[in-house]
Amino acid sequence: MPVMPVTDSMFLLGESREHPMHVGGLQLYELPEGAGPDYLNQMYHSLIGDEAGVQELFRQRPRRPVSSLGQWSWSHDDLLDMEYHVRFSALPRPGRVRELLELVSRLHGSLLDRHRPLWEFSLIEGLEGNRFATYSKVHHALMDGVSSIILANRALSADPSTMNMPPVWAVPPLEKPATNGHGGPLALLESLRDMTSDLAGVLPAVVRNANTALREQASVLPFQAPRTIFNVQITGARRFAAQKWDLDRIKAIRKVTGATLNDVVLAMCAGALRRYLMQLDALPDRPLIAMVPVSLRGKQKKSEASGNSVGAILVNLGTHLSDPAERFAAIQQSAQVAKRSLAELSPLQILALSGLTMAPLAFAPIPGVVKLTPPPFNLIISNVPGAQKPLYWNGARLQGMYPLSIPYDGQALNITITSYAGALNFGLTGCRRNVPHLQRMLTHLDESLVELETAVKS
Amino acid sequence: MPVMPVTDSMFLLGESREHPMHVGGLQLYELPEGAGPDYLNQMYHSLIGDEAGVQELFRQRPRRPVSSLGQWSWSHDDLLDMEYHVRFSALPRPGRVRELLELVSRLHGSLLDRHRPLWEFSLIEGLEGNRFATYSKVHHALMDGVSSIILANRALSADPSTMNMPPVWAVPPLEKPATNGHGGPLALLESLRDMTSDLAGVLPAVVRNANTALREQASVLPFQAPRTIFNVQITGARRFAAQKWDLDRIKAIRKVTGATLNDVVLAMCAGALRRYLMQLDALPDRPLIAMVPVSLRGKQKKSEASGNSVGAILVNLGTHLSDPAERFAAIQQSAQVAKRSLAELSPLQILALSGLTMAPLAFAPIPGVVKLTPPPFNLIISNVPGAQKPLYWNGARLQGMYPLSIPYDGQALNITITSYAGALNFGLTGCRRNVPHLQRMLTHLDESLVELETAVKS
Repeated sequence: MPVMPVTDSMFLLGESREHPMHVGGLQLYELPEGAGPDYLNQMYHSLIGDEAGVQELFRQRPRRPVSSLGQWSWSHDDLLDMEYHVRFSALPRPGRVRELLELVSRLHGSLLDRHRPLWEFSLIEGLEGNRFATYSKVHHALMDGVSSIILANRALSADPSTMNMPPVWAVPPLEKPATNGHGGPLALLESLRDMTSDLAGVLPAVVRNANTALREQASVLPFQAPRTIFNVQITGARRFAAQKWDLDRIKAIRKVTGATLNDVVLAMCAGALRRYLMQLDALPDRPLIAMVPVSLRGKQKKSEASGNSVGAILVNLGTHLSDPAERFAAIQQSAQVAKRSLAELSPLQILALSGLTMAPLAFAPIPGVVKLTPPPFNLIISNVPGAQKPLYWNGARLQGMYPLSIPYDGQALNITITSYAGALNFGLTGCRRNVPHLQRMLTHLDESLVELETAVKS
Repeated sequence: MPVMPVTDSMFLLGESREHPMHVGGLQLYELPEGAGPDYLNQMYHSLIGDEAGVQELFRQRPRRPVSSLGQWSWSHDDLLDMEYHVRFSALPRPGRVRELLELVSRLHGSLLDRHRPLWEFSLIEGLEGNRFATYSKVHHALMDGVSSIILANRALSADPSTMNMPPVWAVPPLEKPATNGHGGPLALLESLRDMTSDLAGVLPAVVRNANTALREQASVLPFQAPRTIFNVQITGARRFAAQKWDLDRIKAIRKVTGATLNDVVLAMCAGALRRYLMQLDALPDRPLIAMVPVSLRGKQKKSEASGNSVGAILVNLGTHLSDPAERFAAIQQSAQVAKRSLAELSPLQILALSGLTMAPLAFAPIPGVVKLTPPPFNLIISNVPGAQKPLYWNGARLQGMYPLSIPYDGQALNITITSYAGALNFGLTGCRRNVPHLQRMLTHLDESLVELETAVKS
């Protein structure tokens, strides 16, 4: 029973009823043609029936034997209770996405049971429009958010006729991390994953460096994050909002403006945050600052070694500007300056930032880091590339997949976006008490996109 | 902001992710005639709409200000979030009681959020047979199990035509505890409640006394509780099983045998426990011992003062005996001897036992009490009298109400029974890991009843 690396156990040690440390994924599927009323019931029974297929990662449970002096270790769970981990749920009528998000918010807010392997999976029926949904929940000590998106993708097939596909917990691990070069939508994801494991030994030290690096970056940038309602101590309950937008709309704006895709996404978020905070009479005079993971591939020649192609930048969201075109220009410029500053950082500092990006939560368990005032940034906005082709699970077409992240003290709202099949899928995870009416952000994101479209046309 | 009495705060202090300290209630209703497909949706919206009606008890939240040196106090919650506390859920098809119990088991296993008033209520649709259900969850620091059953009864009406009835959290508190003498099915309940508040100041001391009293009682009785699978450290997840049986069947057995109703209930449980443990190859050679709250009214002349009419006895369940008639006789005899011994205890000791009965959990937070070996008893079997007439909630007939109790370390299974409208409603709450296949107990209870019926006929 080997002792758990501190990079895993820090997520157990740092966890409390206010800070559940699991990531989640919501997936919406179309019911395949000819699916009868018992389709999901049968699927559920086949899911709980195949205990033998469960991979070791999903059989581990954390233990802290007295003899280990408080060190956590992983042990094999001989009493796997499939009906505990895999749940069959339903939505009340009318079964809109609204009811789905209510349910998923609740599921995401409760702690995983440490006496068992740290995962849960819910199959959800009753979604209108001939659809169903799944929600999965994995502890960060087991898997980070990016790895969970990779795994979710690997469990699916581009071929609608593939059947007898194993569920996500029965997908065998990769023999070697795929090294499919520049190709394939999953290449970046895989490289991110490689990096996280590379970082395993050094992360805790690196997190401190990351913070220093971010502060240095901030010091060369002409702004400082204001206090907002997002930068407070949080409570245990969660609220989740999710929606997708056509990638073509974002691409059209990019084309006209010469901005990056990420710039457009940030501008969409910035406009929405401005509206949201104004409605709550909580918009600060100074602009909000986002911490944004970015790919440095092609920009950063000296970091061509595996992994080091992702960093984090601080971006001025221009939320103090009422004109959407001005706001967009401010974001573009700020991102460019930040990326240049980033390019001037040492490889160690970039590595540090990458560590930070992969494990923003690493902040939370380290005393003194969370309560830094003022906050180095107001929220994290991550854009994780996903598969571009439609994917299927035993013939059921995946309509959308939405990541659920981990709010923590000082960071009550997280926005994570993943692309899939020609759409950008936004997942907003917030502390239920400190981020009220989170659903309104969806309307505001939509308004913000329309505003941008209008602005670039004129 | 007054400091919370230790009788309340001990349930907060003693709580952990393994030991959620809330009680629950499951209620099944018939949909009233003419209820359309939107009946429950409308009910849900009316429930969350009436924030103004919420009583102070359901607006309190626990606080532990730094200035209080770790003492808990109650504070008024100005930001009551009705959609958080009141939830609309649904069952997957086919929507049998089985699916309902799965859902309720999950709901009962998660911790209440301490940043909010300590209650949750779920309205559940999709139950087959033209029914719906409600599940409510209240922290023990707010209300004990008996009080919650009283309140649930008070929220209902014997008149099916009564409409615009407030939900349970909007029922005004009684000006004075009802003192309707011997009459009314709620009299005993009310007297129990009176007693709990009488005990407020003395409980912690009393719990120690209770334990002493129980040990004394045990020492005069010719048995000692064996170790069983129920008397172990527990985990956080729960399993709940519930079913009702006609009171007439139990009464028929009572009539033939001259036993008490409680004796028959205990015999039913004993037969079921024997079968259950045999199937798991876990039946001890020595008989299981149950701790059973009993009414002493009429038996105990010297304790006529308010309250002191309830005590707890230890009963030999005769689970080592294969013959149901012999087992029944052993239970009857054991209960008689125990009640006699109880009658010989001092009033303080009876009070102590009563304290124990009302707050069995009081054990858990006191170090050294939980881990006593061997266990003083194997499980608690409580029979709480309820209303005998059919009750209605805005015209919806209550079919059954089932109490969910609190397993704790050393007591992984709890059986609580409440009577309602000519039936005995059994609620079995167990630690999900240590009490496997709890649903089988329902079959075994049924078999056990049939076995008793056959035994008394011959």
